[in-house]
Amino acid sequence: MEYRIEKDTMGEVRVPTDKYWGAQTQRSVENFKIGPSGSMPKEIIEAFGYLKKAAAITNCELGVLPEEKRNAIVSVCDEIIGGKLVDQFPLVVWQTGSGTQSNMNVNEVVANRAHVLAGNRLGEGDRLLNPNDDVNKSQSSNDTFPTAMHIAGYKILVGKTIPGIKKLRNELARKCEEMDEVVKIGRTHWMDATPLTLGQEFSGYVSQLDHGIKAIENTLPHLAELALGGTAVGTGLNTPDGYAEKVAETIASLTDLPFVTAENKFESLAAHDAVVESHGALKQVAVSLMKIANDIRMLASGPRSGIGEIVIPPNEPGSSIMPGKVNPTQVEAITMVCAQVMGNDVAVSIGGSNGHFELNVFKPVMIYNLLQSAELIGDACVSFAEKCVCGIEPNHPRVKEHLENSLMLVTALNPHIGYYKAAEIAKKAHAEGTTLRDAAVDLGHLTSEQFDEWVIPARMTGR
Amino acid sequence: MEYRIEKDTMGEVRVPTDKYWGAQTQRSVENFKIGPSGSMPKEIIEAFGYLKKAAAITNCELGVLPEEKRNAIVSVCDEIIGGKLVDQFPLVVWQTGSGTQSNMNVNEVVANRAHVLAGNRLGEGDRLLNPNDDVNKSQSSNDTFPTAMHIAGYKILVGKTIPGIKKLRNELARKCEEMDEVVKIGRTHWMDATPLTLGQEFSGYVSQLDHGIKAIENTLPHLAELALGGTAVGTGLNTPDGYAEKVAETIASLTDLPFVTAENKFESLAAHDAVVESHGALKQVAVSLMKIANDIRMLASGPRSGIGEIVIPPNEPGSSIMPGKVNPTQVEAITMVCAQVMGNDVAVSIGGSNGHFELNVFKPVMIYNLLQSAELIGDACVSFAEKCVCGIEPNHPRVKEHLENSLMLVTALNPHIGYYKAAEIAKKAHAEGTTLRDAAVDLGHLTSEQFDEWVIPARMTGR
Amino acid sequence: MEYRIEKDTMGEVRVPTDKYWGAQTQRSVENFKIGPSGSMPKEIIEAFGYLKKAAAITNCELGVLPEEKRNAIVSVCDEIIGGKLVDQFPLVVWQTGSGTQSNMNVNEVVANRAHVLAGNRLGEGDRLLNPNDDVNKSQSSNDTFPTAMHIAGYKILVGKTIPGIKKLRNELARKCEEMDEVVKIGRTHWMDATPLTLGQEFSGYVSQLDHGIKAIENTLPHLAELALGGTAVGTGLNTPDGYAEKVAETIASLTDLPFVTAENKFESLAAHDAVVESHGALKQVAVSLMKIANDIRMLASGPRSGIGEIVIPPNEPGSSIMPGKVNPTQVEAITMVCAQVMGNDVAVSIGGSNGHFELNVFKPVMIYNLLQSAELIGDACVSFAEKCVCGIEPNHPRVKEHLENSLMLVTALNPHIGYYKAAEIAKKAHAEGTTLRDAAVDLGHLTSEQFDEWVIPARMTGR
Amino acid sequence: MEYRIEKDTMGEVRVPTDKYWGAQTQRSVENFKIGPSGSMPKEIIEAFGYLKKAAAITNCELGVLPEEKRNAIVSVCDEIIGGKLVDQFPLVVWQTGSGTQSNMNVNEVVANRAHVLAGNRLGEGDRLLNPNDDVNKSQSSNDTFPTAMHIAGYKILVGKTIPGIKKLRNELARKCEEMDEVVKIGRTHWMDATPLTLGQEFSGYVSQLDHGIKAIENTLPHLAELALGGTAVGTGLNTPDGYAEKVAETIASLTDLPFVTAENKFESLAAHDAVVESHGALKQVAVSLMKIANDIRMLASGPRSGIGEIVIPPNEPGSSIMPGKVNPTQVEAITMVCAQVMGNDVAVSIGGSNGHFELNVFKPVMIYNLLQSAELIGDACVSFAEKCVCGIEPNHPRVKEHLENSLMLVTALNPHIGYYKAAEIAKKAHAEGTTLRDAAVDLGHLTSEQFDEWVIPARMTGR
Repeated sequence: MEYRIEKDTMGEVRVPTDKYWGAQTQRSVENFKIGPSGSMPKEIIEAFGYLKKAAAITNCELGVLPEEKRNAIVSVCDEIIGGKLVDQFPLVVWQTGSGTQSNMNVNEVVANRAHVLAGNRLGEGDRLLNPNDDVNKSQSSNDTFPTAMHIAGYKILVGKTIPGIKKLRNELARKCEEMDEVVKIGRTHWMDATPLTLGQEFSGYVSQLDHGIKAIENTLPHLAELALGGTAVGTGLNTPDGYAEKVAETIASLTDLPFVTAENKFESLAAHDAVVESHGALKQVAVSLMKIANDIRMLASGPRSGIGEIVIPPNEPGSSIMPGKVNPTQVEAITMVCAQVMGNDVAVSIGGSNGHFELNVFKPVMIYNLLQSAELIGDACVSFAEKCVCGIEPNHPRVKEHLENSLMLVTALNPHIGYYKAAEIAKKAHAEGTTLRDAAVDLGHLTSEQFDEWVIPARMTGR
Repeated sequence: MEYRIEKDTMGEVRVPTDKYWGAQTQRSVENFKIGPSGSMPKEIIEAFGYLKKAAAITNCELGVLPEEKRNAIVSVCDEIIGGKLVDQFPLVVWQTGSGTQSNMNVNEVVANRAHVLAGNRLGEGDRLLNPNDDVNKSQSSNDTFPTAMHIAGYKILVGKTIPGIKKLRNELARKCEEMDEVVKIGRTHWMDATPLTLGQEFSGYVSQLDHGIKAIENTLPHLAELALGGTAVGTGLNTPDGYAEKVAETIASLTDLPFVTAENKFESLAAHDAVVESHGALKQVAVSLMKIANDIRMLASGPRSGIGEIVIPPNEPGSSIMPGKVNPTQVEAITMVCAQVMGNDVAVSIGGSNGHFELNVFKPVMIYNLLQSAELIGDACVSFAEKCVCGIEPNHPRVKEHLENSLMLVTALNPHIGYYKAAEIAKKAHAEGTTLRDAAVDLGHLTSEQFDEWVIPARMTGR
Repeated sequence: MEYRIEKDTMGEVRVPTDKYWGAQTQRSVENFKIGPSGSMPKEIIEAFGYLKKAAAITNCELGVLPEEKRNAIVSVCDEIIGGKLVDQFPLVVWQTGSGTQSNMNVNEVVANRAHVLAGNRLGEGDRLLNPNDDVNKSQSSNDTFPTAMHIAGYKILVGKTIPGIKKLRNELARKCEEMDEVVKIGRTHWMDATPLTLGQEFSGYVSQLDHGIKAIENTLPHLAELALGGTAVGTGLNTPDGYAEKVAETIASLTDLPFVTAENKFESLAAHDAVVESHGALKQVAVSLMKIANDIRMLASGPRSGIGEIVIPPNEPGSSIMPGKVNPTQVEAITMVCAQVMGNDVAVSIGGSNGHFELNVFKPVMIYNLLQSAELIGDACVSFAEKCVCGIEPNHPRVKEHLENSLMLVTALNPHIGYYKAAEIAKKAHAEGTTLRDAAVDLGHLTSEQFDEWVIPARMTGR
Repeated sequence: MEYRIEKDTMGEVRVPTDKYWGAQTQRSVENFKIGPSGSMPKEIIEAFGYLKKAAAITNCELGVLPEEKRNAIVSVCDEIIGGKLVDQFPLVVWQTGSGTQSNMNVNEVVANRAHVLAGNRLGEGDRLLNPNDDVNKSQSSNDTFPTAMHIAGYKILVGKTIPGIKKLRNELARKCEEMDEVVKIGRTHWMDATPLTLGQEFSGYVSQLDHGIKAIENTLPHLAELALGGTAVGTGLNTPDGYAEKVAETIASLTDLPFVTAENKFESLAAHDAVVESHGALKQVAVSLMKIANDIRMLASGPRSGIGEIVIPPNEPGSSIMPGKVNPTQVEAITMVCAQVMGNDVAVSIGGSNGHFELNVFKPVMIYNLLQSAELIGDACVSFAEKCVCGIEPNHPRVKEHLENSLMLVTALNPHIGYYKAAEIAKKAHAEGTTLRDAAVDLGHLTSEQFDEWVIPARMTGR
C-alpha cells in the first residue's frame, strides 16, 4: 500500500494515499484493533454529515466562518449524507468513549475531500479548511457525538422502527377483523379455558403494539434535545451567541425532524438517559413481540399433533432431514431479535450508568446498541408481517373440535347453579371422559334443555 | 396448633383455628414452601381491599348482589385497607402465576371475617358470603390480580416514588443555586477539562431527574388501565352490563386516582406491558441516580488524597478499623438500590415476555419487582436527599487550587491563536511543570497581558 | 419506648433499653430507612457468628486476646449461630456498601450481650469487651463482611441449593426410567417431528441439571477463599503472624466446610468475582429450569385441547371463576423463580463491576441477591419435585394418537428412497389428510409392505 | 443481475449465476431481510467446514458414502476452512432459529462447488453430490448447527479469548513486580485509607484475571460435547452404528481440540446451556475488567487535578477542542466492551431459556453473542495490554504526596493506644488541618518518638 504523511499535534502518521482521513483517524485505526473494522454505524456518519453542515451554516450566519469555507464544508457533507464516502470511515465502536476519533474522522475527511473537490491533490498544498479550527468550529466531540447519537437514533426510530411496528400492527388488526367471528377455546395457564374469538385474541396483540408505539413516541421529545452548543463541558465555551438554538433549528430544518437545543447541556454530555429511555421503549416492544410471536408459533403448531388452530404460510422447506416439514421460521427470527434487544437494553443501561462528571464515555456502545435494536425491530416486524402474519388463516375444523370438547364451557353455569356445583360437573365429565351435558344431567343439576340454553360458546365471548 | 376443617371443591383441609383464611389459602401454604412466608407484598393485599370493595359496590348497584352482602364485604375490605388483617395473608410470591391463590386468600378472609363480624364463630353456621359466588362475583383471578397490580403499582409510584425523586431533585436544585458561582475545573474522561461552576455541574443532575420523573409519568396512563371486567379470558363472561366501566370508576373514586377500564381486556390479562413500561422508567431513574451518586462520591473523596471539591455530612463512623474515617454511605446505599433496580428490570422483562395465549402467569414476580424497585427508589432518594445532599458544601480552597492548576484553561486561546498553537502551550507547560502563562509567553504565542485578558476561568463558564 | 445512652467516636446515641446493639447500629437504623427493616439476610448474621468466634479463638491462640475475652465472645457467637438473638439485627441491605454497620452491629451485640451474660445490666458498669478493640480485633469490616458473604453463600449452596437441584434431578431421572419405553412424537420448532420416548425426552432434563450442578460446584473453590486477615485494604495490617491461615482453618473446622485463606486479599476486598461466578452458575440453572418447566407445562396442557401427553397432579382448584380447572401451578412458581434469578444475576454483575480501588462497596446487595437466588432455587426445586414431577404420568391414549398421526415418520424412508421423494409423500399426505402409507403407495414410491418394514416408530428412537 | 434456476422440494428459485448456493439459501435471502446481510458469523461457516468434512470422512469409513463423494466433499470443505468461499454465505443471524438455512447454505455450496471443481458448469448436468442426501448424510440441522456452535465457540475461546486475557494478565503481573515497592495510600469507599504498594494493588487485578481464566476453562468440557449424531431429535435416526463417537473423534483430530460426542444428545439439541455457561464466564471476566480498567482510569486521572498516581501512555490527541488533552482511551474501549458483554449475557440467557421440547430455536442469536463477546474480550485485552498497561509508570511525587498527607496512617496506632484515642487524633488533625504527629502529641496520647516508631507506612503494607 502507498502512504502519504499526515500530521496532528502529536506528530506525523502514515495514511493510505487513497484515503481522505488524516492523522487522528489513522492513529485510531492502529490503536483499536477490536472486532471487525468499520463497526461505527453508518447512521452515525450520516448524522455527522447533517451536523457538520448545520454547524458550518450557523457559524457562517453568526459571522465566525467565511462563506467560502461554509460552502466547502457543505459540499462534502452533502456527499456524506448521500452515502458517497462510506469507505472513508474505518473506525470501530470500541474506540474512545467520547467518539472523538469518529468526530475527527469526519473533520479530517471533510477538510481533505474539500481540498480535492477544489482541484488539489491530497497531501499537497495548503488546505482551505483546518479540521479542528474550521470543520469543528464551535464544536467539541463532547457535544457533536451526542448530537449525532440523537439525530441517528431519532431518524431510525421514526423512519424504520415505528413504521415497521405499525405495519405489523395493521396486519394483525386486519386479521382481527377477518377472524372476528371465529369462536375458539381460550387458554389460561396453558390449560383449556372459556371461549373467545380468534379476532379477540389477536386484538390483544394490536393493543400491545399500540401501547408500544405510544411508549416509543413518549421518548422522542427527550431524544429531540440536541447537545450541540455545549462544546467541551456543557458551558458552550468558544461558541458565538445564539449558536446552540440556531444550529438546532438548522438541523431540524435539514432533517425535517423536530430537533431543539437541549435545555441543559450538562446533562446532554454527561448522561445519555434519552438513549436509555428510547431503548427502554424498544425493550418493551421486544417483550410484546416475544409474547405475540410465541402465541402464533403455538397456535400454528402441528400440523397434526399440536394446537393447530391457525395455519401460517410455508416459506421454505423446514428441515434438512425431515422431508415435508414446515416451520414457523419468521417467528423464530423475530423472537431471536427480541432476545437480542432485551440484552442490548442491559448494555445500554450499564453504559448509561457509568458517566463521570462532565462526560459519559460509553457513547459509541450506547448508540451502537440503540441503532441495532431499532433496525432489527423495524426489519423483523416488516418481515414477520409480510412473510407470516399476512398469510395467517384459521384452521376451522381444529378450532371447532377444540371448542366443542372444552370442559370450561361449564363456567357459563356459575350464575345459574353456583361455582361448586359447576365444578362437580366439570370434574365428573373429566373423570369419565363424557360431555358436560351428560355429566350435568346425570348429576341432576340441570336439564338438557337448560344446558343448551345456558351454554352457548359464541355468547360467552361477549361479542 | 389447633385446627378447624375448611372445604373447597377438592375436599377438606385443616386450617389454624385463629385464621380467617380457608381451604385454598391453606393448600397454597402447604404447596409453596418457597422462600420466606408472607412474601406477597402488602401493597397487593391493600389493593385487593379496594378492588373487592369496588366490585361489591358495583355488583350491588347493577343488581347482582344484595345490599346486605355488599355491606358485609365492604366492612371487611375497609379493615384490609386499614391494615388490620395483615397476619391473614400468609402466601408467597412464588405461587401460581395468576395470583389465584392470593385472590382466593382475600375471598376467603372476607367471607370468614364477615361471618365473625356478624357475631358468629369461625367454622360454625352458614356464612352469608360465599368466597367464589359472592366475594369474587363478576371477577376472576385473571382480571383481579392484574387490577391489584395496577392499583398497587400506581399508588406507590405517585405516593412514594415520584415524591421521593422530587425531594431529591429539589434538594439538588437548591444546591445548584447555592453553588451557582463556584467556578471549578471540569472533568471529561476523568481528565482535567475546561471550567464550569458547581451549580452548573449539579444542574445536570436536576435535569436528569426532571426527565426521569417525566418518563415515569409517561407510563402512568397505561398503568391506569384496569383489567377488571375481563374475567377469565378477557371477554367479560359472567359480568353484568356496564360493569367494567363502573367498577373502574368506583376504584378511581375510592383511591382518588385516575383509573379507567382498559380498552382491551385481552391485553390486560395476557400481557403486563404496563408493568414493563413503568419499571423501564424506574430503571432509567436508577441509571440516572447511579451517575449522580457516583459523581458525588468522587467529588467528596479524600479528605486529603482524593478530589475533595465538596464536603458531605459525616453521619457515622465509617470504619471498624480505621479511626476517624468518614464514608459516603448514603451514596453507597442508593447506588446499591440502583444495581437492584437494574436487575429487577430484567426479571420484569423476562416475566413480561413469557405470557401464553390468554394469560401471563408471571404476575406475582412482576409486581413484586415493580413494588420493590418503586419503594427502594422512593426511600433511597429521600434518605440521600436528607442525609447527604442537603449537607453538601463546596470545599473552596480545593476547588480553587484545582481550577488554577488546570492546563485546559488553554482552550480559551483557540479563537485567538488556533488549536495547534494552544496545544503546543499546554504540552510545554505539562512537560515542564510550569504555568500556562509562562509556557505561552516563552513560546512567543502571546504576551502576558493577552493571557490575562483572554484566560478568565469564570468567563469560560458562559454564565 | 425507653432508651439508654450509647457512645461511639462521634458522640452519644439513644438506644432502646431492651436491645443489645450500640451507637453505630442505632445510627444506621436512623440513617437508612430504605425498604423493610431487618432486610440484611439472617444467613449473614449467622456467618458473622462463625467468623467472630473463629477470630476470637485464633486471636487467643496467637496471644493477642486473653482467654477470658475469648470465652465471652465465643458464648455470644454460639447464641448467634443458634438463632437466639435474631431480633438484635435490625439493619437493612441498603446501608454502607462495605457492610460496616452490620459488622459493628455484631460487634456491639457481642460486647453487650457478654456483659449481660456475665451478670451485669445493659449500660451499667465497665464492659469486659470493647466492640472495636476486642470483638473486632485483627479484623476490619472490609475483610469480615466478604468473609461472611463467602461463608453464607457456600453454606446455602451446599446445604440447600445443590441438594434441592439433586432432588429434582433424581425425581426426573426416576421418571426417565418409568417412561423409558413410551414412544411418542418428537417436536422441533413446535412442529411434529420424528419420534423418541418420553424417557429420552426427560433424560435431556436430567443431563441439563447434571451439568448445572457441576457448574455450581466448579465455582465453590473460589467461594471457599476467605478474605479474613486482609483487614482494611488487604495488607493484613494489625493482624498477628499466621492469623489469616489459622482463622480460615478455624472457620473450616467450625463449619465443616473446606474454607481456605484467599491467596490474594486485595482481590477479596476489592472485587467479588466469586459471588459473580457462583451466581452465574445459578443463572445457568435458572435457564435450564425455565426450559424444563416450560416443557412440562406444555406436555401437560389440556385436558382436552392441548398437548396432553402427560398428566400432572392436581394440587388445588386452579381458578376462582372456572370450576374444575387444574393448573400447572408448581411450574409457574419455579419459572417465576427463574425470572427472578436471571434478573438478580444482572444486579450481582453490576454490583461486581463497580468496585473502586481497594474496596467494592456493593457487598450487601451482591450477597442479598446470591442468597435469595440460592434459596429460591433450592426451595423451588424441592417443591417442584415433590408436588409435581413425582406425580407425572404418561397419558398413553394421547401419546399414541399423536404418534400415529405424525407425518414425520416419513423420515425413516430417507435412506431407502431419498429426501426428495420422502418429502413428496409427506406433502401429499398433509394436503389430502391421508396417511403416509396411502400417500406413499399412491405415489408408487414403495409398497405397503415396504412401508411397514421401514417405518417402525419404536425403532426410530434408536433404543 | 443474471440468474439460473435452482430447485428444492418447494419448487424453483432464481439464484445469481455466479453464486454456488441453491434454492434454500436463496429463499432465506429473500425471506429474512433483517439487519445487515451476511451477519451469520464467519466462524460458524468455518466450523461447518470442519463438520461436513468430518461427517463425510466418517460416513465413508462406516460404509454409507462412496470415496468419490467423500473426496469431493472434503475438497470443498478445505476451501471453506481456508476462507476461500466467504462470499458464498449471505445469510443473516435472524433466520430460522435452528440455523437450518445456514446448514443448507453449506450443503448447497458444497454440492455446487464440487460440481464446478469437477470441471462442470453451475446449473448444468447432473451433480455428483446431492445437498441433502450426500453432504447432509447422517446429519440434521438440529445436530449440525449446535455442533458448529461448539466448534466455533471452543476455537475462539482457546484461540483468541484466553490468550488475550493471559496477555493482559501477564502485562499486569509485570507491572506488579516493577511497582512492588512503591508504597502508596490505599482507598476504600473512595476515601483515604491505610497504605499498600502499587504492586499489591495491581496484584488484585492479576488474581481476578487468574480466576476468570479458570472460570472460562471450567466451562470448556461442556462446550467440548458435540451434538452430531443426534440428527433430528436426538435419537440418532438415520445414522450408522458408531457414527456419533467416530465423527466427534474426527472433528477432534481435524481441529486438534478435545471434542467428544455428547453423552446426552437430547440436551444438546433442546438446550444450549453450554453456551450459557461459557458466556457466563465471559461475563464474569467483563465484570473483572470493568473494575480493573476503571481503577486505572482513576489512578491516571489528572494530569493536575485528579488522582494522578500513575501515568499511562498518550496514544493520540484526546480532544477536538481542548488542546494538549490526553485521555485514557484504551480504558474506554475495554469498558465499553464490558458493557456489551454484560448485555450479551442476558441475550444468551433469554435465548437459552426459551427452548421447547426437542429443539431450542434461538441457536443463531446465542452463538452470535458468544462469538462477539469472545472476540471483543480477546481483542480488547490485547489492545489494553499493548497500548496502555505496558506503558504504565508510577508518578512518584504524587504517590508520595498522597501517602504522607494521609490521616489513615493513624490506624497503626490501634494496637498501642486503642481505636477510640486513635480516632480522636485523626479527627483533630482533620479539623485543624495539621499532621497526625502534631495532633497526637498535642492530645498527649503519645510522644513524637513513639509516633515515628509506630507509624511507618512501608511497614503497614505487610511486605
